[in-house]
Amino acid sequence: VSELLADLEAVSRFGGEGSGVTRLAWTPELFAAYDYVGARLEELGLEVEVDPAGNLVGRWHVGSGPPIAVGSHLDSVVAGGRFDGTLGVLAGVHAIRLLRRRGFVPGRPLWVISFMDEEGARFGGSCFGSGAFAGRDLSGLEAETDRDGVTLREAMGRAGFDLDRVPEAKRVDELGAYLELHVEQGPVLERAGTDIGVVTGIVGGAAFRVRFTGTPGHAGTTPMELRRDAFAGAARAALALRDRALSSGEITVNVGEVSVEPGGASTIPGAAELTVDIRSLRRFAELETIVREALETVAREERLELGVERLYSIPPCELDEALVETIERAAGDEGATHMRMVSGSGHDAMELGRRVPAGMLFVPSRGGFGHSPDEHTEPERCELGARVLARGLQLVAE
Amino acid sequence: VSELLADLEAVSRFGGEGSGVTRLAWTPELFAAYDYVGARLEELGLEVEVDPAGNLVGRWHVGSGPPIAVGSHLDSVVAGGRFDGTLGVLAGVHAIRLLRRRGFVPGRPLWVISFMDEEGARFGGSCFGSGAFAGRDLSGLEAETDRDGVTLREAMGRAGFDLDRVPEAKRVDELGAYLELHVEQGPVLERAGTDIGVVTGIVGGAAFRVRFTGTPGHAGTTPMELRRDAFAGAARAALALRDRALSSGEITVNVGEVSVEPGGASTIPGAAELTVDIRSLRRFAELETIVREALETVAREERLELGVERLYSIPPCELDEALVETIERAAGDEGATHMRMVSGSGHDAMELGRRVPAGMLFVPSRGGFGHSPDEHTEPERCELGARVLARGLQLVAE
Repeated sequence: VSELLADLEAVSRFGGEGSGVTRLAWTPELFAAYDYVGARLEELGLEVEVDPAGNLVGRWHVGSGPPIAVGSHLDSVVAGGRFDGTLGVLAGVHAIRLLRRRGFVPGRPLWVISFMDEEGARFGGSCFGSGAFAGRDLSGLEAETDRDGVTLREAMGRAGFDLDRVPEAKRVDELGAYLELHVEQGPVLERAGTDIGVVTGIVGGAAFRVRFTGTPGHAGTTPMELRRDAFAGAARAALALRDRALSSGEITVNVGEVSVEPGGASTIPGAAELTVDIRSLRRFAELETIVREALETVAREERLELGVERLYSIPPCELDEALVETIERAAGDEGATHMRMVSGSGHDAMELGRRVPAGMLFVPSRGGFGHSPDEHTEPERCELGARVLARGLQLVAE
Repeated sequence: VSELLADLEAVSRFGGEGSGVTRLAWTPELFAAYDYVGARLEELGLEVEVDPAGNLVGRWHVGSGPPIAVGSHLDSVVAGGRFDGTLGVLAGVHAIRLLRRRGFVPGRPLWVISFMDEEGARFGGSCFGSGAFAGRDLSGLEAETDRDGVTLREAMGRAGFDLDRVPEAKRVDELGAYLELHVEQGPVLERAGTDIGVVTGIVGGAAFRVRFTGTPGHAGTTPMELRRDAFAGAARAALALRDRALSSGEITVNVGEVSVEPGGASTIPGAAELTVDIRSLRRFAELETIVREALETVAREERLELGVERLYSIPPCELDEALVETIERAAGDEGATHMRMVSGSGHDAMELGRRVPAGMLFVPSRGGFGHSPDEHTEPERCELGARVLARGLQLVAE
């Protein structure tokens, strides 16, 4: 077993559950993983600290000018996989190891970072650590509680951190560039049989809670043409938005939650609620217009009342074209097949990419699984990814 | 206030709740209503008994040959309306009252019947009393329990009845004809501004629980064209069946319950369950074919697995054409506007109509409401309906 895979196996034990892991923010399991990774970084000669936002940062004091950072996260969702985030951090460690072994002396300082709470699985609000690093105001999360009623402030306090000091973690402006390796969490690379996805941008998007209101009624005695069937509206809206996404080629739409009222096989639905999740590299205003137009058309044609509540919205992030080309070149140098693609899910690179040049590469996810104990990436694909990352770092830091 | 409306007001107090009633099978509230109605029937010279199936039967021993029965039911759903069933029984009582007052002497015996538990709201299994009267085997309901865990056998025993003696209630073969007045429970008559609906048949139908199974996935990272979205299948199926019903002009279809799994705005539904309720005068086999073909087409095109479970099926019942014409003539004689229509919900007339000539007339339901405290029929429409019923009885019993 190679050192990268040995590290992955070792870290998987912290919060490990069968083939998966549960390693939530600010927990002993997560800090145990920090200790393991910190020890590896120190072995490689890096200076290690945990910053006021709970980010583990290893610094190779070498060269001059703005540092190049490589990172991802060690926290997971509940019953998540071993690879999500963790592979990116350990690939960063391994990339430093490879560069050291080759005797490469970077022209710039190199940092390896594991950002705190990328998943937001304990308190909501994803990308806590990278957000803090990038200077985002996180004080609004203060009153959020976990399943046990523990507030974020309390959880941080128990781990020896102070929410009021989080702004001190802002260091993004010192960086020259940021690179991140991550598992794809989708089926595209596996289906294409391609080793490396070179990410050109990370989608933004929004989610809405939608309610159609019609008139409940008796399924036998109300003539079809007199019905105001709220579920018919929900069904039409879901299909219209799917058609819109399919024809665009670059928007995704999902209706993931659906309920009808009052419920009962013989009762015409008087109300139907659904969620609409829409993602794309387009701006929020454009996406909102697409959703609202589709919903309003259906509501009008079905004579239904319509309520739309925005649940969240996140702006998209274009990644740095020069770094895209650098990663392509690194992949070529390592003999890896590669393709450009868009990331359909958020990553720490999104937070950093809004402030400094950022690049990102994906390795394939078997079956497209993500956020699941079924998450898996073949060992040789993990190692190839780490070599491409190392080569990319070398090209950037030369 | 007329006698009919006074009776309606009086009976509404048994199990009354605001503008509605809850009068379940085998309860003291229902038997209190029996006592009230039985007393009215005795005042009119009828011999009253409650048969072994819990049906209240009043017999006017007059004339000769097979008796003509008029009836409906005094039980209600939970939080039901005052009119459903009860208006039909009291209109029967009032029709006898009118015939007596006019000095009409029937050529045939006349029976007024309130059938036990038409709604099936306590133990499931609707039309218990009329089913027993028509000779249907009801022993399969023995183990059914109400919300308090009381079995049907126990509930009958507490009220002085014996489930084993229910078959003795079979008297349908003695009858010459059956007439029933009922509230429409739909919006057709009110919208048409018509006094009387002359029912030509009662729809049969079936309900199915349908499950589409696809593949759950991440709403951002799974390309649209690779999804196996179970809810998209449910939505398409619901709309395809609606189109089929609308184009047929005589089928109704309802999707009244919908759920998706695993749920979550950002998770593609891996499974979706829905109920399909389909009704028509067509045979079950035809309706099942319509439903299955629509579902199978969607499943194939969406690459989903399909499971279909039949929840129930009830054959349709054509009513007697001669009685349809008699009711039309009676309506004309009373100066009532009338139209032929199909009943979209089941009634006691369905049980009897399979064995003896049966006729049925509807009076308008304000707003189309049924099974609700909002149920209402204008007093003059109630009285006009009772007069048409009396005239119809007279024409049949002459």
